[in-house]
Amino acid sequence: MRTTILIHCPDQSGIISAVTGFIHSKGGNIIYLDQHVDKEADVFFMRLESDFENNGLDVEEFKKEFASNLAAHYQMQWSLHSDDVLPKMAIFVSRYNHCLYDLLSRFNSGELRAEIPFIISNHEELGYIAKQFNIPFYHIPVTKDSKKEAEEKQLKLLKEHEVDFIVLARYMQIVSSTLIHEFPNKIINIHHSFLPAFAGAKPYHAAFERGVKIIGATSHYVTEELDAGPIIEQDVTTVSHSHTIKDFIAKGRDLEKIVLSRAVNLHVQRKTMVYNNKTVIFS
Amino acid sequence: MRTTILIHCPDQSGIISAVTGFIHSKGGNIIYLDQHVDKEADVFFMRLESDFENNGLDVEEFKKEFASNLAAHYQMQWSLHSDDVLPKMAIFVSRYNHCLYDLLSRFNSGELRAEIPFIISNHEELGYIAKQFNIPFYHIPVTKDSKKEAEEKQLKLLKEHEVDFIVLARYMQIVSSTLIHEFPNKIINIHHSFLPAFAGAKPYHAAFERGVKIIGATSHYVTEELDAGPIIEQDVTTVSHSHTIKDFIAKGRDLEKIVLSRAVNLHVQRKTMVYNNKTVIFS
Amino acid sequence: MRTTILIHCPDQSGIISAVTGFIHSKGGNIIYLDQHVDKEADVFFMRLESDFENNGLDVEEFKKEFASNLAAHYQMQWSLHSDDVLPKMAIFVSRYNHCLYDLLSRFNSGELRAEIPFIISNHEELGYIAKQFNIPFYHIPVTKDSKKEAEEKQLKLLKEHEVDFIVLARYMQIVSSTLIHEFPNKIINIHHSFLPAFAGAKPYHAAFERGVKIIGATSHYVTEELDAGPIIEQDVTTVSHSHTIKDFIAKGRDLEKIVLSRAVNLHVQRKTMVYNNKTVIFS
Amino acid sequence: MRTTILIHCPDQSGIISAVTGFIHSKGGNIIYLDQHVDKEADVFFMRLESDFENNGLDVEEFKKEFASNLAAHYQMQWSLHSDDVLPKMAIFVSRYNHCLYDLLSRFNSGELRAEIPFIISNHEELGYIAKQFNIPFYHIPVTKDSKKEAEEKQLKLLKEHEVDFIVLARYMQIVSSTLIHEFPNKIINIHHSFLPAFAGAKPYHAAFERGVKIIGATSHYVTEELDAGPIIEQDVTTVSHSHTIKDFIAKGRDLEKIVLSRAVNLHVQRKTMVYNNKTVIFS
Repeated sequence: MRTTILIHCPDQSGIISAVTGFIHSKGGNIIYLDQHVDKEADVFFMRLESDFENNGLDVEEFKKEFASNLAAHYQMQWSLHSDDVLPKMAIFVSRYNHCLYDLLSRFNSGELRAEIPFIISNHEELGYIAKQFNIPFYHIPVTKDSKKEAEEKQLKLLKEHEVDFIVLARYMQIVSSTLIHEFPNKIINIHHSFLPAFAGAKPYHAAFERGVKIIGATSHYVTEELDAGPIIEQDVTTVSHSHTIKDFIAKGRDLEKIVLSRAVNLHVQRKTMVYNNKTVIFS
Repeated sequence: MRTTILIHCPDQSGIISAVTGFIHSKGGNIIYLDQHVDKEADVFFMRLESDFENNGLDVEEFKKEFASNLAAHYQMQWSLHSDDVLPKMAIFVSRYNHCLYDLLSRFNSGELRAEIPFIISNHEELGYIAKQFNIPFYHIPVTKDSKKEAEEKQLKLLKEHEVDFIVLARYMQIVSSTLIHEFPNKIINIHHSFLPAFAGAKPYHAAFERGVKIIGATSHYVTEELDAGPIIEQDVTTVSHSHTIKDFIAKGRDLEKIVLSRAVNLHVQRKTMVYNNKTVIFS
Repeated sequence: MRTTILIHCPDQSGIISAVTGFIHSKGGNIIYLDQHVDKEADVFFMRLESDFENNGLDVEEFKKEFASNLAAHYQMQWSLHSDDVLPKMAIFVSRYNHCLYDLLSRFNSGELRAEIPFIISNHEELGYIAKQFNIPFYHIPVTKDSKKEAEEKQLKLLKEHEVDFIVLARYMQIVSSTLIHEFPNKIINIHHSFLPAFAGAKPYHAAFERGVKIIGATSHYVTEELDAGPIIEQDVTTVSHSHTIKDFIAKGRDLEKIVLSRAVNLHVQRKTMVYNNKTVIFS
Repeated sequence: MRTTILIHCPDQSGIISAVTGFIHSKGGNIIYLDQHVDKEADVFFMRLESDFENNGLDVEEFKKEFASNLAAHYQMQWSLHSDDVLPKMAIFVSRYNHCLYDLLSRFNSGELRAEIPFIISNHEELGYIAKQFNIPFYHIPVTKDSKKEAEEKQLKLLKEHEVDFIVLARYMQIVSSTLIHEFPNKIINIHHSFLPAFAGAKPYHAAFERGVKIIGATSHYVTEELDAGPIIEQDVTTVSHSHTIKDFIAKGRDLEKIVLSRAVNLHVQRKTMVYNNKTVIFS
């Protein structure tokens, strides 16, 4: 049985030794360890993957001892994940299909190891894709007046299906504080610019206007401040004077889908940790 | 004899045919033609390289006929350059040596085909590099009080040496309106961020603070608005949570010198045109 | 009405002037011109897009005059395409779905402007994707013994549907000389390495074995020599010692689909020309 | 006092715990730990940076205990480096100046933390650069007949100055077995292609001939098989049909110098380990 442990705590001498010693004493073989110290904040981060032979690990007992022997002493925030439990991921879309197709074709081929209980959209257009992949599709229109009601419907579905995290696959609505507080650092957005450049609406138009030679896409966790959450992944591509805004948009689509899918996979594999509005991304 | 012609004018039917016909009629063989139409502004841009056999071209006569037969009719802004006339380039530096070394080693090996009449610096530190390469070095300190006087000295040198364009190779001073007006779209700066992100001071610190996964450098023509001039060249490199600000600065140095040298070479080869605060970069 | 003209011929003085003059005389407005001279082979290449107002162009008449007035004189190989005629593209696949999904989702959103009369596969697995997108799917198994017969079936379908070009979207069979001769420079393959490195079978395994720090994908026209045809497009991504072969394959999938789709779009937009086993790719 | 420990040994359970426990018991604070397991070869690699407070570490005693308590038990190959001891690096060049300038300007600004006791060249051309930077320059010509004698002179200098490793900064000679055996995985070369593509002579010509769309550079440790040693660092840049061989060479120069300097810095910082003709590169 393989488990992944994520830890962060105030930096202090001896943590690695203590944690690896504990796992070793419980019959675990550490097959991956990556650690990081944020020197400014004096915070220690670690991600460990361990194999426990013969599946002989009593997870609850392990957790109890870890909590009392280590976590309390080092003031750790920590979590333990069995790799055979797939996280549940809801997808929100509007009218663009490229990110949705990219996620679903990865899901389909087993590359994206998550469950997808449903897709929510404020438009009906992409319902046919949900049908193609046999995934329930909920059309929840959002207007100025219905915003609150729509949100309640969304939350009800998310809770009913015990959703772990949300992917905004070019969902063209600003999500509410309520949703953000229910899913802190668990809503993944794709913004079609190289943030912090061109935050907000119409980034390709702004990039064109400015005459940049490179455009980008940024996947980040959603926080209350628009397009200002912790960045998970970014990528860029070159453009030139010969490209029109339409070309920017077409080139950008390729970036958006690849960057978003990479970010989702990092999250699913528990390779992301968030601190001070920044991410630690384990390799 | 090889000449390069740069043209921009209102877009209209028949320009390419008229210009190429004219050159052909004068015994020129077009060995390169690149053209671009800015559809929004309805402006036509063209760059032509032509060979005139046996050096039989009377440049002044050609210019006169071109002006009266073509330029007037099509309302062209245009220029003609003989490839054997090297542009004169002044370099301004402060204390960082990487861009300066990069420019001078290219100059030294013949890759950068320009004359460098002198280097100006507000500090003495890099004088030894000028000495290494046998290039006159003028130390012109700039303080709040001496700013105007310093500028006059700079302008005097620039005029005396008939300098064509200026390269700010990490010159840590804001150049004045006067200088900008004397050298419109002829002052090339390197900014150590992926503009328009992180304009202004300390971009690596700001990038670190924001937790970006990619940093960049931007070379642009200097205009009165800080870091907002027409972009010539940009490039980026990946960073991660494990990099400190010091690492950002070190990785950035490589970007800065390569991006600046590429921009300078594009300018020297007359492959840049500026319009509406954007550049057309010919290939 | 917009047309694209592609020309190559022995390099000589006056071609651009002659062609642009001719188009102008026929009421055409050149909205894009790109040209290239292969200095070693002394061959001239040109791509022109022209608008003819009021759709007043008699295409057959234009072609006849172009042929007699220009093409004969300059020994041109040339073609003229109306932009409203979509090329017909057949897709060949085996068992991997990522390139197929990428092509079809672009087709679906109107980004890939071609007709897709059918998909051929030597396996049944991906039939469901064809069904998802309502495209006829022909399962033509290929064994040592049935190879010739299979090929005849393929050719029959290709001819019946007047297919213009073929895309091998990770088709794990070597196509025959017959097919290659019927579709010269019209079969586009994606090879999962940075050619010419790691041609042939199992390139990711070979790359892993060699310990490279960058892997790539290459799209090329198929010629009789395996993986040695004219390269249309390449891209790469970084890898490290920490990546397994499985990671190489996963990262490679993203490259493969993007590189293949880019190459297909270049072909569809008639931006590729082939000469001496190399491509000219217009911007 | 900061030390870096590099370890590799057969993979087995408990190593991390044992090593980190030992360091902790000696008053060391681990400030960086990166580890890797080569699953195929079943080999474990680790790099640790530790701070020992008050400089109270008795290095010799630490080494002795480490050897007897840990290294023997786990069959480790290991080394310990104090960060205040700079490695001694010899540079070999021929006629190209770009890599040399790049290394020396980094050396000059303190970015490259090594000693450079001398530069060796088979030509006199670059002697002036050595003079610019006040570094001894030895001109040791190499002809068919003098090859052995030249090598002896090189070896003598290398030993006299207790050189730790050698950088071939575009040294256009094949180094002998003798030298390779004296400096195993301690001779760093820069090859001007994306290996394993275009090994051997004239890679840019071969790349041009093949019509690739991307060119590269590779820095690797020198082994007896030409251009086949463990790869440290690679990078690439795009090219097109419009680039001549001369353009390839010019674009390649920028790659070569950056890639070589990065590889040298990784080596100097003891971030490289070699196993089975591959490298582990720590972050």
